[in-house]
Amino acid sequence: MAVGLEKPSKLLPVNGVRLSSAAAGIRHVDRNDVVLIEFAPDTVVSAVFTQNAFCAAPVQLAKSHLAKMPARWLLINAGNANAGTGEAGLSDAMTCCAAVAEQFEASVEQVLPFSTGVIGERLPSERLIEVIPALKDKLSASGWEEAAHAMLTTDTVAKGISEQVQIDGNTVTITGIAKGSGMIRPDMATMLAYIATDAAVEQAAMDRCLEQAVNGSFNRITIDGDTSTNDACVLAATGTVNDTVLNAEHVDFEILCDAVQRVCRWLAQAIVRDGEGATKFITINVEGGSDSEECLAVAYTIAHSPLVKTAFFASDPNWGRILAAVGRAPVLDFDLSLVDILLDDVCIVRQGEPATDYTEQAGQAVMNQSEITVHVRLGRGGSVEQIWTSDLSYDYVRINAEYRS
Amino acid sequence: MAVGLEKPSKLLPVNGVRLSSAAAGIRHVDRNDVVLIEFAPDTVVSAVFTQNAFCAAPVQLAKSHLAKMPARWLLINAGNANAGTGEAGLSDAMTCCAAVAEQFEASVEQVLPFSTGVIGERLPSERLIEVIPALKDKLSASGWEEAAHAMLTTDTVAKGISEQVQIDGNTVTITGIAKGSGMIRPDMATMLAYIATDAAVEQAAMDRCLEQAVNGSFNRITIDGDTSTNDACVLAATGTVNDTVLNAEHVDFEILCDAVQRVCRWLAQAIVRDGEGATKFITINVEGGSDSEECLAVAYTIAHSPLVKTAFFASDPNWGRILAAVGRAPVLDFDLSLVDILLDDVCIVRQGEPATDYTEQAGQAVMNQSEITVHVRLGRGGSVEQIWTSDLSYDYVRINAEYRS
Repeated sequence: MAVGLEKPSKLLPVNGVRLSSAAAGIRHVDRNDVVLIEFAPDTVVSAVFTQNAFCAAPVQLAKSHLAKMPARWLLINAGNANAGTGEAGLSDAMTCCAAVAEQFEASVEQVLPFSTGVIGERLPSERLIEVIPALKDKLSASGWEEAAHAMLTTDTVAKGISEQVQIDGNTVTITGIAKGSGMIRPDMATMLAYIATDAAVEQAAMDRCLEQAVNGSFNRITIDGDTSTNDACVLAATGTVNDTVLNAEHVDFEILCDAVQRVCRWLAQAIVRDGEGATKFITINVEGGSDSEECLAVAYTIAHSPLVKTAFFASDPNWGRILAAVGRAPVLDFDLSLVDILLDDVCIVRQGEPATDYTEQAGQAVMNQSEITVHVRLGRGGSVEQIWTSDLSYDYVRINAEYRS
Repeated sequence: MAVGLEKPSKLLPVNGVRLSSAAAGIRHVDRNDVVLIEFAPDTVVSAVFTQNAFCAAPVQLAKSHLAKMPARWLLINAGNANAGTGEAGLSDAMTCCAAVAEQFEASVEQVLPFSTGVIGERLPSERLIEVIPALKDKLSASGWEEAAHAMLTTDTVAKGISEQVQIDGNTVTITGIAKGSGMIRPDMATMLAYIATDAAVEQAAMDRCLEQAVNGSFNRITIDGDTSTNDACVLAATGTVNDTVLNAEHVDFEILCDAVQRVCRWLAQAIVRDGEGATKFITINVEGGSDSEECLAVAYTIAHSPLVKTAFFASDPNWGRILAAVGRAPVLDFDLSLVDILLDDVCIVRQGEPATDYTEQAGQAVMNQSEITVHVRLGRGGSVEQIWTSDLSYDYVRINAEYRS
């Protein structure tokens, strides 16, 4: 079902990163559902987590571990989110981390747990712990594709991409994998993303690099407006390639940041393309706002409208629904006589009035496409924002009505 | 499909109000789709309209007419919203009002137009105008049920109710009809509601009465989070029963306000019960907030979550989705360790932790019902708010994907 998305064909290994996957039977049998990622000593790790106040046990623990010590191992499971599980859930996550630490004779704080799947059920930690020795044995620099597969839930396609850029005279690799296809909205969603590079970067610069990248990617997508309890995005720099450690002032720092952002944006868009039940990939581009906030307010009001989303599903050029969504966006002193709305290059509203040159055929031709851009020009200022979303189909309802059964 | 809702069996006439319906073939043949409502001279009329910045031509005109002169006639059509139609739409609406005015040898400002249906298509005003003489001839005090039917769009059941109360020693009647089943959220939606009483009330008191009633009813429901371009609610008092004209200080004024609010609440809940594709009627009760705003923020975050709505559709006690929705509600310094969540009387979260006495069977028993109340206790203060919503089903998608075809 994923719109214009194929499974990753060739993910490049990142020097200093090894991965492995195994089947613990957490929710389904006969599929890998646990991933272990190992970083070389002295790897610099940044992470951002869900803004949901009810954050899951693994998120609480990962934050606390990361605050104490640099992370060396990430333990990721699919099928069970270990969320809404209270003290027992924290203890389950801790037990799993301790089992990894024991295998490597390391400190438990060097292990970060991540879970995705059903909320509110106890994590079967004993099954997870059972596969940890095998995970250790199987660690490999070429484990990226298998890891991308193992962490999927309702996703239909594994998501991963690699980039290479020149930093300080060396070829630096950036590889990222992600999962997520529902409960997606800004401020992180049921989304897990792991990006690693072999560049050497200072911690403060890494944090800034990740924050910028996430803002321009994972925080600009929405599928159903729901923010999950479990989202996380980790960026690791093993520092095994270039000798100079990059800080934010380094001449090549922006090259690295741009590459990380491209990887994050590709992964974020891949999540939308594989959105639950998605049949369309929709870009919403709002320009001419007085500030970023009002551009985003308009963009998300369109993206979250079930009526707009079902019209896209039906390939129905029912532009009135887009107009109604723009009209109810929370924008102060909204002067609609300045507003233009376009579907790709077909103008539907000009200066707040239906475009006189609009034809149903032209609108229909755009709506028949699987990838569509909605342009809204507010005529209020110079701000521009772009977000990505999907349509609302029968399959979205089916997937979410049946997920637990 | 409507949840626990039957068509109105006996709507009481209101002295001074006459109604008629006719088939103008605006969108479908062989069904009534135009309604005329006539108020006796000196009727006091209040109205509230959509907050959507792109408000439809009839809304713009109705507001402008009402500001100039008391309304005597309401002309309502279903099938075409006359929204997003620019200057031509205003002119179409004006032409229809003028045709009514001509029939009654009245001023055009005494006629208010209302439209509901597809956005962005020209109103076939000539077909509407053709039936106006017949509408005039058919005006009758017992036209309420037929009018309730004629203004439906995707609704499956006509909605109407009557109440009688004692005011100032007289029996006063209040009858209301409404339509609406999608594009429903606070601040008015694709919703038209007409309520009339034969009580005598001052204009300022009427405005207050309507505002309070709408806040406790139509502004507390949501189906899909979309606000339409056409919503309107009109309250008319013909003053034909009691001699004393009620003002806000009159000892019986609150009796009238309470009755109007009950009528509005019944109509608002009826709209949710008949929500597009609805299979459940869900009350969300949030108490213990520091103020009304935060109670509503939590309530609407739950009500607008597609994941919560699909879980209700599936009768799946997937309370984790409710918890995740509460957790992402925009509440400042949200202390989840104070939060309780219940499904009817089954506690699922106590003091921020999964309730130890919760059983899947108990949760399932509640979810199997067609009417369910979600209780959230915030433990922050004394505010309480209640809203009503429906689930998200295959039929919601079908109805909105097929509406124009």
